Amino acid sequence: MTNPPAPVSAEPAPDRRPGGRTARVRAQVLDAVRAELAEGGHEGLTMEGVATRAGVHRATVYRRWRDVGGLLADLMAAAGEIDWQPPDTGSLRGDLTALNTEIQESLVVEPSFAVALMAASFHSAQAAQAQTRLWEDRYAQCEILVERALARGELPAVPTDARSLLIAATAPVYHQLVLMRTDPDPRLPERAAETAVSAAAAGAFALRQ
Amino acid sequence: MTNPPAPVSAEPAPDRRPGGRTARVRAQVLDAVRAELAEGGHEGLTMEGVATRAGVHRATVYRRWRDVGGLLADLMAAAGEIDWQPPDTGSLRGDLTALNTEIQESLVVEPSFAVALMAASFHSAQAAQAQTRLWEDRYAQCEILVERALARGELPAVPTDARSLLIAATAPVYHQLVLMRTDPDPRLPERAAETAVSAAAAGAFALRQ
Repeated sequence: MTNPPAPVSAEPAPDRRPGGRTARVRAQVLDAVRAELAEGGHEGLTMEGVATRAGVHRATVYRRWRDVGGLLADLMAAAGEIDWQPPDTGSLRGDLTALNTEIQESLVVEPSFAVALMAASFHSAQAAQAQTRLWEDRYAQCEILVERALARGELPAVPTDARSLLIAATAPVYHQLVLMRTDPDPRLPERAAETAVSAAAAGAFALRQ
Repeated sequence: MTNPPAPVSAEPAPDRRPGGRTARVRAQVLDAVRAELAEGGHEGLTMEGVATRAGVHRATVYRRWRDVGGLLADLMAAAGEIDWQPPDTGSLRGDLTALNTEIQESLVVEPSFAVALMAASFHSAQAAQAQTRLWEDRYAQCEILVERALARGELPAVPTDARSLLIAATAPVYHQLVLMRTDPDPRLPERAAETAVSAAAAGAFALRQ
């Protein structure tokens, strides 16, 4: 994520300088969100629990973050994952396998921030927007995997729908782990990657003019 | 779904005969769930709202259905979708496109029972189990699409992982509409189907011994 907007950026904030009261409250609240997630998972995350643990007035938490989705969206903003780089293993199959392995790990780890955000996105507009923005950024960053594969001659040399290829490679991992809730299969990341590469080699993602 | 267990099947139920009080309460409650879903979507579905609309004591609703997920699971059981048949269009590409079109419609319709069940499944064990069972049943029923394609010579004549093929075909539709929340694309059902058929024709789902 690069620079997601803060949830209350439009509100006047005279003491918003680093180290000011607003910054301290935010740090306390986000620390509490992390601790509550680690302790009770996303099912246990409530505005009241976060406010109590943070030692901050409930009214303040509701005003600044609105709902649990707002807390998760801000936690994501604070994480500032600007250093994330897509994998670069030397082959499209290797890159997509590494990407899927990273996705699988983010979904099965306890507590899973990724699953917490997905769960919240059904109920919170802020969480839904944060999640859509995260997908958008990550898939945009990953398009270089397809460009590199084209440059290496691994795919048919035609204009290619990189986004659809990336979605085809990754969607089965989310589908099986998050929606179908099957047990994690250590071979799934590689198999889903291979399937997408097969389809790509057969021209399935060639852009139609 | 064939015969999902009723949520309280182990409880003694002297008046559980058709038309008895238990059956009447269940009908009232499930009617109220449908009405609440239609009016407020899944975000608006609460145990209190359902009890009030049904004119049934809250304690009864909590005891028999436990949570919103329990209500949705029982609604699905009551729907008794035993008549659902997988598509049979004469080609694998046509069958998977028809299946994806049906999935896309179930996800974009307002209110979407499918989305309500997914949302609830993050918070309710009963909803999660009902959903896992529904996926399992539907994918099992759809394996015949792959058998027919093999019999027609549309796929390489080798043992084929039908389940992975079906997941590859359908996962991008769920991923884009439910998790990424992109606008519905009328070409998505066919494109996702075509991608899976390409991969299958290239041998991507051949079972490794």
